[in-house]
Amino acid sequence: MKTKIGIADTTFSKVDLAYFALDEINKKFSNVEIVRYTVPGIKDLPVACKKLLEEQNCEACLALGMVGKEPIDQQCAHEASQGIITAQLMTNKHILGAFIHENEAKDEQDLLSICEDRARKHAANTVLLIQNPDELMKSAGMGLRQGRAHVGSIKPKA
Amino acid sequence: MKTKIGIADTTFSKVDLAYFALDEINKKFSNVEIVRYTVPGIKDLPVACKKLLEEQNCEACLALGMVGKEPIDQQCAHEASQGIITAQLMTNKHILGAFIHENEAKDEQDLLSICEDRARKHAANTVLLIQNPDELMKSAGMGLRQGRAHVGSIKPKA
Amino acid sequence: MKTKIGIADTTFSKVDLAYFALDEINKKFSNVEIVRYTVPGIKDLPVACKKLLEEQNCEACLALGMVGKEPIDQQCAHEASQGIITAQLMTNKHILGAFIHENEAKDEQDLLSICEDRARKHAANTVLLIQNPDELMKSAGMGLRQGRAHVGSIKPKA
Amino acid sequence: MKTKIGIADTTFSKVDLAYFALDEINKKFSNVEIVRYTVPGIKDLPVACKKLLEEQNCEACLALGMVGKEPIDQQCAHEASQGIITAQLMTNKHILGAFIHENEAKDEQDLLSICEDRARKHAANTVLLIQNPDELMKSAGMGLRQGRAHVGSIKPKA
Amino acid sequence: MKTKIGIADTTFSKVDLAYFALDEINKKFSNVEIVRYTVPGIKDLPVACKKLLEEQNCEACLALGMVGKEPIDQQCAHEASQGIITAQLMTNKHILGAFIHENEAKDEQDLLSICEDRARKHAANTVLLIQNPDELMKSAGMGLRQGRAHVGSIKPKA
Repeated sequence: MKTKIGIADTTFSKVDLAYFALDEINKKFSNVEIVRYTVPGIKDLPVACKKLLEEQNCEACLALGMVGKEPIDQQCAHEASQGIITAQLMTNKHILGAFIHENEAKDEQDLLSICEDRARKHAANTVLLIQNPDELMKSAGMGLRQGRAHVGSIKPKA
Repeated sequence: MKTKIGIADTTFSKVDLAYFALDEINKKFSNVEIVRYTVPGIKDLPVACKKLLEEQNCEACLALGMVGKEPIDQQCAHEASQGIITAQLMTNKHILGAFIHENEAKDEQDLLSICEDRARKHAANTVLLIQNPDELMKSAGMGLRQGRAHVGSIKPKA
Repeated sequence: MKTKIGIADTTFSKVDLAYFALDEINKKFSNVEIVRYTVPGIKDLPVACKKLLEEQNCEACLALGMVGKEPIDQQCAHEASQGIITAQLMTNKHILGAFIHENEAKDEQDLLSICEDRARKHAANTVLLIQNPDELMKSAGMGLRQGRAHVGSIKPKA
Repeated sequence: MKTKIGIADTTFSKVDLAYFALDEINKKFSNVEIVRYTVPGIKDLPVACKKLLEEQNCEACLALGMVGKEPIDQQCAHEASQGIITAQLMTNKHILGAFIHENEAKDEQDLLSICEDRARKHAANTVLLIQNPDELMKSAGMGLRQGRAHVGSIKPKA
Repeated sequence: MKTKIGIADTTFSKVDLAYFALDEINKKFSNVEIVRYTVPGIKDLPVACKKLLEEQNCEACLALGMVGKEPIDQQCAHEASQGIITAQLMTNKHILGAFIHENEAKDEQDLLSICEDRARKHAANTVLLIQNPDELMKSAGMGLRQGRAHVGSIKPKA
C-alpha cells in the first residue's frame, strides 16, 4: 500500500517550493502517493494540512511557505507555526513546516538555494517519519540542518 | 446549488471593506450566496466566523478588519489572527483573513487602494477555495499579493 | 423572554467599570437580565465568562478589566484576550472585551472618562449582538471607537 | 462537606510559597481540604492543576511559581500563564496564578515579602471564589493588589 | 509492572541529549521501560510526545531539544513549548521539556556540560513524577536548577 503524503503550499511564495518537494519524493521514494493543496498564504496552511490529514487521509503533511521581510510577515509565520502545531495535536499526525524567510538569504540565488535544500530535505523527512522512523533516530543529535549544510555534532572530549 | 460564503466585518474599520468584497463576488462569480455579520472589532471576528460556518452552514468565510496604528492594535490583530486559525482548525473550513493595517499606507487614498485591492482579491480567493481550488494551484509559488501588485516568481537560472 | 447577559469584572481594576455597564444597559434596553461575576484579575476573566455562558446560560458576556502600566500588565492583558477568544470559540457565543489600559490616559479624570465611554458603549454592543445585530451592520466600516469619540469613515473620492 | 482546593508549586522556586498559602487557608477558613502537587518548573503547572481539578476533583486551584530574571524566564511564565488559562477553559474551574517575578523585588527581603503577601492573598481568593464569591463582588473595582498593598479606587468627582 | 517513559529528541540538536537521559534512567531507576522517538526539530516534539503518550501508552515524556542562536530559533522554542503545554492538557500527562539554548553557553564544553546536567536531571524528574512524586514535594521551593547547580532557597530571617 502506498504512503499518502499531503503537500500544502501558497500562491504568496515567490518560489515554487512544491516542485522541489515533489521531485525529491519521486526520485528517492517509491510507494508514495501525493495530494497537493494550494492556499493563498501561510496562515491558511494549518487548516489546509488538517483537511489533507482528515479529509484526504494523508498520513503526514509537508507545509511549504515563504515568509516576507516585514515584521508583519514574521508575525504571520509565528501564527502559522502555532496553528500547524495545534493541527498536529488535534490529529496525532506530523506536519513538517518548511518555511523559508526572505531575510535568511543574501540574494535571489541564495534564496533559491535555501528553498531547494529545505524543501527537498523536509520532503524526505516527511516520508521517513512514516516509512522509516529508525532512519531519523540514527541521526538524533547530529546537528542536521535544512536550507544550509548540516552543522554536525559536538562530542564530549575523551 | 449555491456556494454559501460568510463575510464578517467590523464597525471599527474606517473603510467599508465589505462593499468591495460583495461587489467583487457579485461581478466575478455566480452561484454564491453571501451571509454578512458585523461585529465591533477584529477580536470579535473569530467567533463571528465560527458562527457563520457552523450555525449558518457557510462553506468558507472572509474576515475583514482594519488595524489601527498603535502597538495595542497590532496585538489585537495578532490575537484575532490566532483565533481565526483556531476557528478554522475547529471547523475544517477556511477563513481568509483580510486585515489592512493603517501603518501600511502613506495616506488616505493609499489606504483606500490597499483596502479595495486586498478585499477584492481575498473575496475571490475565498470563493475559489470552494468552487475552483485548481485555479489556486496554478498560481502556487507565483508571488501573488493582496493589497499591492503581485511581485512575481523567482526562477532558477537555466 | 429576557436576554441574559453576563458581566465579569475584577477587584484589580481601580474603577468600578460594571457600574457604567449596568447603568447603560438599564437605561437603554429593556428585557435584559444581567448576571455579574467578580474575579481577582483579568487572567481570571476568560473562565469566569465561560462559566457565565455555560453554567448560567448567558447569551453573551462583557468582560471588563483594567490593565496596569508595567510590561507584565500588558502581557497579562494579551493572555486574557487570547483566553477570551478561545472561550468564545468553545461556546459559539460572544464575549466583548472592554479593557482599559492605564497607559492610555493622561491623568485620572481622563482615565475615568475612557472607562465610562468604553464600558457604556461595549455594554450596549453586547446587548445589540443578541437583540439587534442589524444595528451593528448599519455601522460597518464607520470607524466607531469605544473609550474615545468615533473617528468616522473614509470614503473614496467621487 | 469540605471545599477541596488544589495547590501546585515548583522545585524551581527559591521560596516555599506553599507554606504561606497553606498557613493562610488554615488560619482563615474552615472546611477546606487541600491537595498538594509539586512539579519541577512553572511550565509544568498547567497540567498539574488540570490533574488536581479532574483526577483529584479539586474545585479550584492555586498555582504558585517563581519567575527568574532572564528573558527566557519571562517567556516561560508567559507560556505557563497561557496554559493555565487554557486548563481553566477545559475544566470550567478557576486556577489562580500566583507568580512572583524576581525582577519585581529590590532585594531578598523584599522578594520574601512579595511572596508572602501574594501567596496569602491569592490563597484566600481561591477559597473565596468557591465558598463566598459575593465577598469578591463587594471589592469589584477597588484596586486590590497581591504582593504589594492595595492601590485603592478612583471615584468620579462629585 | 514497569513505568513506561517516552523520550523524544531531534536530529537538529548538535548534542546527543538522549544518551544522557537514557544513561541516567538506567543507572538510577529500575522498572522503567523507555520508548524513543526522533523527529527533525523542536516544533515536531509536541505531536511526537502526544503520540508516545496516546499511541504507545507512555505515562510521561521527556522532550529533548537544542535551540539555536538566532531570534527565529527562540521563536521556534516558544512555539514548541506552547505545544508541549497543550499536549499535556489534552492528555493529562506530564511532558518535561528539557531545552538547551546555545546562547546559554560560553563555549562548546560549557554547552555539553549544560546539556548533560539538564538532560540527566529532567530524565530523573520525569520518572519521579510517576514513581515517587513525594520526592519532588520534599524539594518544593528549594531553588533546584537543571543545567547548572541548584541555587538554593531563601528563608525568612528568624
